[in-house]
Amino acid sequence: MDSRWGTSRTEAFSDGVFAIAVTLLVLDLAIPRTEFADPWRAIAHEWPSYLAYLTSFVTIGGIWLAHHGVFRRLEYVNSRVMRLNLVLLLGVSFLPFPTRLAAEAIRTTDAERAFVIFYGLCLFLVALSFGALWTAVLRDRGLLRPEVTEEEVQTITVATAPNIGLYVAAIVLAVFLPKVAALGYLVIAVVAVMRARGDQPEHARGVAARRS
Amino acid sequence: MDSRWGTSRTEAFSDGVFAIAVTLLVLDLAIPRTEFADPWRAIAHEWPSYLAYLTSFVTIGGIWLAHHGVFRRLEYVNSRVMRLNLVLLLGVSFLPFPTRLAAEAIRTTDAERAFVIFYGLCLFLVALSFGALWTAVLRDRGLLRPEVTEEEVQTITVATAPNIGLYVAAIVLAVFLPKVAALGYLVIAVVAVMRARGDQPEHARGVAARRS
Amino acid sequence: MDSRWGTSRTEAFSDGVFAIAVTLLVLDLAIPRTEFADPWRAIAHEWPSYLAYLTSFVTIGGIWLAHHGVFRRLEYVNSRVMRLNLVLLLGVSFLPFPTRLAAEAIRTTDAERAFVIFYGLCLFLVALSFGALWTAVLRDRGLLRPEVTEEEVQTITVATAPNIGLYVAAIVLAVFLPKVAALGYLVIAVVAVMRARGDQPEHARGVAARRS
Amino acid sequence: MDSRWGTSRTEAFSDGVFAIAVTLLVLDLAIPRTEFADPWRAIAHEWPSYLAYLTSFVTIGGIWLAHHGVFRRLEYVNSRVMRLNLVLLLGVSFLPFPTRLAAEAIRTTDAERAFVIFYGLCLFLVALSFGALWTAVLRDRGLLRPEVTEEEVQTITVATAPNIGLYVAAIVLAVFLPKVAALGYLVIAVVAVMRARGDQPEHARGVAARRS
Repeated sequence: MDSRWGTSRTEAFSDGVFAIAVTLLVLDLAIPRTEFADPWRAIAHEWPSYLAYLTSFVTIGGIWLAHHGVFRRLEYVNSRVMRLNLVLLLGVSFLPFPTRLAAEAIRTTDAERAFVIFYGLCLFLVALSFGALWTAVLRDRGLLRPEVTEEEVQTITVATAPNIGLYVAAIVLAVFLPKVAALGYLVIAVVAVMRARGDQPEHARGVAARRS
Repeated sequence: MDSRWGTSRTEAFSDGVFAIAVTLLVLDLAIPRTEFADPWRAIAHEWPSYLAYLTSFVTIGGIWLAHHGVFRRLEYVNSRVMRLNLVLLLGVSFLPFPTRLAAEAIRTTDAERAFVIFYGLCLFLVALSFGALWTAVLRDRGLLRPEVTEEEVQTITVATAPNIGLYVAAIVLAVFLPKVAALGYLVIAVVAVMRARGDQPEHARGVAARRS
Repeated sequence: MDSRWGTSRTEAFSDGVFAIAVTLLVLDLAIPRTEFADPWRAIAHEWPSYLAYLTSFVTIGGIWLAHHGVFRRLEYVNSRVMRLNLVLLLGVSFLPFPTRLAAEAIRTTDAERAFVIFYGLCLFLVALSFGALWTAVLRDRGLLRPEVTEEEVQTITVATAPNIGLYVAAIVLAVFLPKVAALGYLVIAVVAVMRARGDQPEHARGVAARRS
Repeated sequence: MDSRWGTSRTEAFSDGVFAIAVTLLVLDLAIPRTEFADPWRAIAHEWPSYLAYLTSFVTIGGIWLAHHGVFRRLEYVNSRVMRLNLVLLLGVSFLPFPTRLAAEAIRTTDAERAFVIFYGLCLFLVALSFGALWTAVLRDRGLLRPEVTEEEVQTITVATAPNIGLYVAAIVLAVFLPKVAALGYLVIAVVAVMRARGDQPEHARGVAARRS
């Protein structure tokens, strides 16, 4: 009664959205011609844009790694997971907007706090939708490939959960120290990338080789 | 005499266009620096842009789901289906333009009605071209994979047809109540995503597992 | 001594460039807010942009079909074909620039002739680089899959050659009648799409089914 | 203990980023309407933009060829290679920014030297991160497919190393002769593309055919 989807086109479409969201960020980097008289200073002056660019790039890179890790273990996607994946992609493709706002605001005292909080809320919602996607997978274990062990499932759960809490903490921090919170978003993203585990446990190597 | 195409590159090219069209929408979200003095109000003030963004994202997401569902069941694509697929992609990649117009117009009383109708007409033409693509498949059943049942064919037909009518109704509504019609476009898209069926019926699970 | 490349990543990278080039075109469609007072007239007034958009979309769509038809028949790509493919992609990804110029120029009498000719020259160079790519394949028949018949090779050759001549004719026409030539570019593209043959001859169906 | 990743989605995501970075470059090409009175001169006047466009396109094309050559030989990706691949993609997706700056600066005497050096530094860092990726592969030979010979490994090493040195030389040159150095970046990229070797040695043809 509940129908299912193959994973390959879902991966392809998701990879497309991840790759474009990550690459579009560069369009927001610019140096006005009026600053060309002192070019090195002009380049350095753009540091909030680089920080925002780097943060969103690493954040999306980390989500892609986690997405890769989850989908490689799925045999099917059910309707709920499919919809939550669309919600996740909606969030990811939206990120360039708050990224740009945060980059512009860091030098504008008026809007700095608000836009850094807004950026954090968007990152939080993306983390939340990824958590919801993984929870939906756990509610229908039949979606997982038969060789996936309980240990691997635990590892993904442990890797997914803390980000949501960390973003809440960073957003609270942004109320008082927006610049520090902005740096915090980057740290959360870097840690997520560093902690990302592969899509195959070492002992399953032979199996995976034959499958790929 | 009539030659045929494999489906995999057609899927890859289509996925690329879907993913980019959906991600480019974010480029139209912006807050002018003059509004930075009251940042939360400025963020809230952009609601027509978010509504338009969400509507086009969900609409394209729904078309991608339907496209996925159709192509997974095809063994080949004939020239007619291939051309209609290009027409569909032309429509999808055009959508960011009327989306942006509708978003800008919702606060400009002069243009609101016209641009919401124009947006609806574009959504209608995209739905129509998808219907034409599916009709072209039905005219050459040899394109379908042998295991596709008549029941699955019926399900897709039932899912494809009503959208065309709903868009006509929403466009008529836009003549009198543009804002309500704009919301209607979103509702049509959400319903299409919620009603999307998977690419494999439950009972075909074993077959699909072996094939993928 | 001369090394070879597999085709799958070359197809994936090329599909990405085709899909993005085709979708970026929409960024050049815009209606200035000053024209919002008379919205339907403003939409209609943009016809040169739509014509240019349609022309480049159909042109790139036709090249993608031809590219698909050629690469499906290749077992390998040699260094020469690989480089010519990069030249082709360079031309395709450049097309949004002359497209935009031609669209803007059609209403500016000064630049109309020059920019329509420039657009035609770019289309001509893209057609030429595709012809060069196919010629490079013909010089090393070992690149073709063994089941490809001489008849299929002839069909592709016949489909590739005339475009180059047609663009020369259209460019000459642009010197005298730029608007007519602009329409001619669209006609050439539509004819190319209509004449595109599939990647599998009808009689090879069984073979292809097993391979895909 | 150290987990591993399959290569196919990494290739797909990387191809997406390469294809988009290469295609976004066209958005920086524009001719202001004020120059439409003398259109051919306006087209010619944009030569620094074309040079920068060509340089970044060929550079990214060369990196894609090298990336293709490396990943085709990998059975797995470990965490270190995965992270270095993200660093590489970060660099590649950043390139449109210095490309645009260099193009704009070549006619502005003030900023020319600085922005050409900045562009060179970015190209250097991209070359460096590719070198780091390949070094990480060499530190864990188990990532390589079993059929990869020591000779092939040497060929890739020889192709990867010199670029880093050449960029250093070109950047030093940029201090004195920015325009010549800008041309030098293009020459380095063209040489890299011309020297790119395929992903399969001639003698491994039969093996590869069966695998693909």
